[in-house]
Amino acid sequence: MADQSKIPQATAKRLPLYYRFLNNLHLQGKSRVSSKELSDAVKVDSATIRRDFSYFGALGKKGYGYNVEYLLGFFRKTLDQDETTNVALIGVGNLGTAFLHYNFTKNNNTKIEMAFDADKSKVGQEIGGVTVYHISDLSERLKNVQAAILTVPGAVAQQITDELIDSGIKGILNFTPARITVPEGVRVHHIDLAVELQSLVYFMKHYPVDE
Amino acid sequence: MADQSKIPQATAKRLPLYYRFLNNLHLQGKSRVSSKELSDAVKVDSATIRRDFSYFGALGKKGYGYNVEYLLGFFRKTLDQDETTNVALIGVGNLGTAFLHYNFTKNNNTKIEMAFDADKSKVGQEIGGVTVYHISDLSERLKNVQAAILTVPGAVAQQITDELIDSGIKGILNFTPARITVPEGVRVHHIDLAVELQSLVYFMKHYPVDE
Repeated sequence: MADQSKIPQATAKRLPLYYRFLNNLHLQGKSRVSSKELSDAVKVDSATIRRDFSYFGALGKKGYGYNVEYLLGFFRKTLDQDETTNVALIGVGNLGTAFLHYNFTKNNNTKIEMAFDADKSKVGQEIGGVTVYHISDLSERLKNVQAAILTVPGAVAQQITDELIDSGIKGILNFTPARITVPEGVRVHHIDLAVELQSLVYFMKHYPVDE
Repeated sequence: MADQSKIPQATAKRLPLYYRFLNNLHLQGKSRVSSKELSDAVKVDSATIRRDFSYFGALGKKGYGYNVEYLLGFFRKTLDQDETTNVALIGVGNLGTAFLHYNFTKNNNTKIEMAFDADKSKVGQEIGGVTVYHISDLSERLKNVQAAILTVPGAVAQQITDELIDSGIKGILNFTPARITVPEGVRVHHIDLAVELQSLVYFMKHYPVDE
């Protein structure tokens, strides 16, 4: 396998996208794919795809393209597709419920194992096959879970983050408007819906065409 | 104002984040901010902040930092904060409902003006102050709207995208798993929940600390 530490972050961010598309191709019975086809499908330009793939030592052949099965095998190893990461969902509001109904395991190596909410009327419910527990049981229940999706009100985001970290969580997908502080070694990806919308609008006005 | 076309995309993507934080500082009555404080709050390293700000011609003073009001005035102009962009929400499921309850206008220059869904039981409802119309009325109702948030099932994403474009939409925030094709001049930002989660897990394993 290629030396992981040498893959640039920008390339690494595109890996799950490539994997998902190639997996779909494979399910459709396709055995090869050109960088042009890939480019059209995942909306990343061909030159970038070829450069990305070269980091993994995958070189396309002219007039043939890439071997889908080889790439999939490679990505599966790289993305540790065979090792499932257990995820807890914190905050079963509308956004949290959307996550619970999203079928992550289909193409994916992640599984939402449990959910937590402060609303007692939600406790004990099963949504999308996942049981909802009370937030006060967090540290007691959180076993064998490595990552959390945070969809709680911004005002309690830091407090709950601290509890998650005390329980050994190593990664947080933060969907609250709050920026959270975590110790070194804990990974946070932040998706703020308002910032995403504002960013789209800004780019619409100033960069109408992708550079 | 600085020449917009010279601001790198990576810098431009951070603008809404800076704006939001500075606006909060201003509301709290703070008149100046250091790049260190900004860095701690928005989780972007100080060197990057200083470089970003230098593109806008904003230079911090040693021992003083940046003037909040000056920066806000600058960002407001740059982000066209005074000019509201009208947005339509397509697909009032759990994710769509979360958007409707999200108070975008608070710190923001965007407003969800109308929502559409295929489910007749939702038509006529008002959610978060926004009326839900039937999806078949899309082209008829869609007036004076520049952007759309797409939270429909992936299988109908392209068809609805085509209708949105025929109605003059210039930007789409795509939350479906589908990659959509649009003509030149239409901007698409794609946020796939499964890809975001997979990306977090990949980074947890290989890049536990931000580079």
